[in-house]
Amino acid sequence: MSTSSPSSASRRDMLRSAALLGSGVALTAGGGAAIAAADSEMARIRKAAESNRDADIRRIQDWIKLPSIAAENLNMAEGAAYMADLARSAGFTGVTTVPSDGHPGVFGVMDNGAKRTLGIYFMYDVKQFDPAEWSSPPLEARIVDKPGWGKAIVGRGAINQKGPQATFLAALHAMKDAGVKLPVNIVLLAEGEEEIGSPNFRQIATNPGVLAALKRCEGIFIPACWQGANGEVQVNLGSKGIIELELIASGEKWGRGPKGDVHSSYKAMIDSPTWRLVQALQTLVSADGNNVVIGGWSENVRPLTAREKALIAEAARGMDEAQMKASFGVTHWIDNLPLEQALVRLAQEPTANIEGLVAGYTGPGGKTVLPGRAVAKLDFRLVPNQTRAEAEAKLRAHLDSQGFTDIEANVSGGYDPTEVAEDSLLIKAEMAAYAKMGVKANLNPRLAGSWPGAVFTAPPVSIPAGHFGIGHGSGAHAPDEYFVVDSSNPKVAGITDATMGFVEMLYQMAAVR
Amino acid sequence: MSTSSPSSASRRDMLRSAALLGSGVALTAGGGAAIAAADSEMARIRKAAESNRDADIRRIQDWIKLPSIAAENLNMAEGAAYMADLARSAGFTGVTTVPSDGHPGVFGVMDNGAKRTLGIYFMYDVKQFDPAEWSSPPLEARIVDKPGWGKAIVGRGAINQKGPQATFLAALHAMKDAGVKLPVNIVLLAEGEEEIGSPNFRQIATNPGVLAALKRCEGIFIPACWQGANGEVQVNLGSKGIIELELIASGEKWGRGPKGDVHSSYKAMIDSPTWRLVQALQTLVSADGNNVVIGGWSENVRPLTAREKALIAEAARGMDEAQMKASFGVTHWIDNLPLEQALVRLAQEPTANIEGLVAGYTGPGGKTVLPGRAVAKLDFRLVPNQTRAEAEAKLRAHLDSQGFTDIEANVSGGYDPTEVAEDSLLIKAEMAAYAKMGVKANLNPRLAGSWPGAVFTAPPVSIPAGHFGIGHGSGAHAPDEYFVVDSSNPKVAGITDATMGFVEMLYQMAAVR
Repeated sequence: MSTSSPSSASRRDMLRSAALLGSGVALTAGGGAAIAAADSEMARIRKAAESNRDADIRRIQDWIKLPSIAAENLNMAEGAAYMADLARSAGFTGVTTVPSDGHPGVFGVMDNGAKRTLGIYFMYDVKQFDPAEWSSPPLEARIVDKPGWGKAIVGRGAINQKGPQATFLAALHAMKDAGVKLPVNIVLLAEGEEEIGSPNFRQIATNPGVLAALKRCEGIFIPACWQGANGEVQVNLGSKGIIELELIASGEKWGRGPKGDVHSSYKAMIDSPTWRLVQALQTLVSADGNNVVIGGWSENVRPLTAREKALIAEAARGMDEAQMKASFGVTHWIDNLPLEQALVRLAQEPTANIEGLVAGYTGPGGKTVLPGRAVAKLDFRLVPNQTRAEAEAKLRAHLDSQGFTDIEANVSGGYDPTEVAEDSLLIKAEMAAYAKMGVKANLNPRLAGSWPGAVFTAPPVSIPAGHFGIGHGSGAHAPDEYFVVDSSNPKVAGITDATMGFVEMLYQMAAVR
Repeated sequence: MSTSSPSSASRRDMLRSAALLGSGVALTAGGGAAIAAADSEMARIRKAAESNRDADIRRIQDWIKLPSIAAENLNMAEGAAYMADLARSAGFTGVTTVPSDGHPGVFGVMDNGAKRTLGIYFMYDVKQFDPAEWSSPPLEARIVDKPGWGKAIVGRGAINQKGPQATFLAALHAMKDAGVKLPVNIVLLAEGEEEIGSPNFRQIATNPGVLAALKRCEGIFIPACWQGANGEVQVNLGSKGIIELELIASGEKWGRGPKGDVHSSYKAMIDSPTWRLVQALQTLVSADGNNVVIGGWSENVRPLTAREKALIAEAARGMDEAQMKASFGVTHWIDNLPLEQALVRLAQEPTANIEGLVAGYTGPGGKTVLPGRAVAKLDFRLVPNQTRAEAEAKLRAHLDSQGFTDIEANVSGGYDPTEVAEDSLLIKAEMAAYAKMGVKANLNPRLAGSWPGAVFTAPPVSIPAGHFGIGHGSGAHAPDEYFVVDSSNPKVAGITDATMGFVEMLYQMAAVR
């Protein structure tokens, strides 16, 4: 591949690309490493991607039709086998499932004789869903018009993560079909338990064969298609950690209240595990529900640096606050903060969130029972230098110190926060790829979401880990999750441009210094 | 009918009955009004009841197979029509449905040319159920062996109220089949919305034709088959009132937090309606969840009188505390109270109970959402002289004063507490009937459960209202609800003795002074 200046032909390509992706966004073409691929190669690859478009869309749709849900032990073996087939079809060799104490990982390599190796992280599982909440059936993956965005595949996993992952595979197909030799070697590692907190992913990543392959990687990324309405993307220099758990109050463990449900009239003489859960919950957070008040919770929190705050300020300037609020269905951020301060909070603050409450009768109308058991499903997000183990221990200690020794805290999964150096090859390649494509990239100090990146950034793997991609989708974990295939917004990539984004990243990964 | 002393033949009948129902319980035979029916009549009626036994059991089973659930608008018209057919078949005339703003009532009369008229209250609806929680299918009404009790019909509505109600109808069938003229006239009024708090029953009871009939009644009772393991029953001199409602916190009403569910990572910048609900809930009760701390909640509570406390003490002495605790699945009463004090609390204290909690994701495992809406289903039990209207107003005022003006309190139903005079004809007849049968009857100052009795005791109806019956069942509102048909406990009535209990009550109602 070449790092020379672009020909006038490629310049036209870039202009076309800029027109597609971000009219008004300054081009950075001609800036040394920003141009990595030979023009003719890129043109051939784009032509292949355009030819493959229908098949690339169908690959996403077909994958959505097979939901693997670890929490429900649904289609897990089938999902792993399907993942392995997808990898083989895209050109990975030695594709195997990697056993764990839970559901298996899927591992494959693509040795292109290149100097550098890039890791790619996939998940083959998706979140649970309730079809009744969807306007288009979540497993049918229909193409629906999304006003303001274009034509999108609607289905569970569309954006998280089947759409972006299949689009990364589309990039490999396009390069293969164009007869192009890949500029980097690739190591692919997929798991099937991301949505339950990756309880066994460390075991999979440290399987000797997998570990050896990962340690050869300059970095690893998870495909992401998260362009905003202005076409902007975030390059995350890390992510929050998480613990996910159930707090359970029960007559069984408490030794008070009923073991099962009894008629509610007996509340006058029988204690209520549900009230006990409410009382325990309200000790965890401030009165507004916005700050964790568990003893010592934040003592290891590293405050944001000046550089990190400056990055957030810059990112805020590139965002469309009204569109963000509309997409979330909110009218105010916490404490009526302006967007920049809300984003500081998003990066900086540990959180306690109630994902779900379940006690007694949950159907329509009422039912006069005194329930024997009440459950709150919680997630706590963690920031550097909190750890998952620390959070679990402090939560337990807090409950005990408040007298709630009987309340169970059943942690189902979680991971530590991650951090990635701004000057790592991975981040430099991402920034170069976005620059080459004329996509505004905001360096974001920390993703507020969580992913098992700590498995990669921490010993023994110890490689940079992040997210990369253009394109758009939304609704992760929510109804009507979607992934745009035909973009009606000139600043946002459709499936072919998103495919080419991954191609660009491979070339930049090979080229940056 | 006769009030003369029993012949030796009837004495034998009584002894047999006493042996069935309460060996060791002192007989009160020969005590004036305690003997109301002619011996030959009673013998003929018992013979008819014994002949009808299979049909009487089938009547309960068939009724259970048609569940009418107002909360789900399930089989309501069908249930009313079925109720009307049951009434007609038992000898009621002019049976009609009584329209209301909700589901209709069913009304019928049986004019036997008697001096006194007795009212009977039925409900044709049942509580919701989840078949997965039942060991025997809730609509199959199978006969199952209940160790310690005997053979029982298991099904939704078995004890609440289809079993007892159908057994009352069995008494009418037996008397008709025995060619016996009933000693009282009967007015039957049924509703289909008891399980949602009887929101329209006052309208039904004050329908001009219904009201005129009710005002002719000396009293009204709801059939009850609630004998304990020692054969004892309670005669309730009133019952608690109730309001049943949903407290709802939502981003929509709050103007903070999301309208729908969003990804939980945004908790750092978006408020949580679920935390808001938790905070609001915990202001309603004391830290142990056992006392309502809403401002002014108890200011109109009439403390129990010395007579009422004495009655409770007497009742406590007749109860099997270990069996009670086992049946509830509890090891301690509130505050580790001894039984008598727990029963005082049961009669005396207003309660706040959480029937159910519903927010966000309620399925297996977790799901990282920040829910846009959270619901607590509550019931508040009320004691004299609290009123439903007062409770609703004070709850709203409390929420507002605590700043929770956005939290909706949607009251679905409820009724005022009731009181019945110990010296009313209804209570005197009940006590006489139990005495005649050798059944230990504890005068109970107040049922902790609630029923729409206030519709009868308050103007314009203004008649005594209570519960009556022998026999046994349990599990109202819970899985595996049952009604005993063949009793293996000599102190507890099976279906034929329970049928004869209602017959006895009709005679005593005609005879007492």
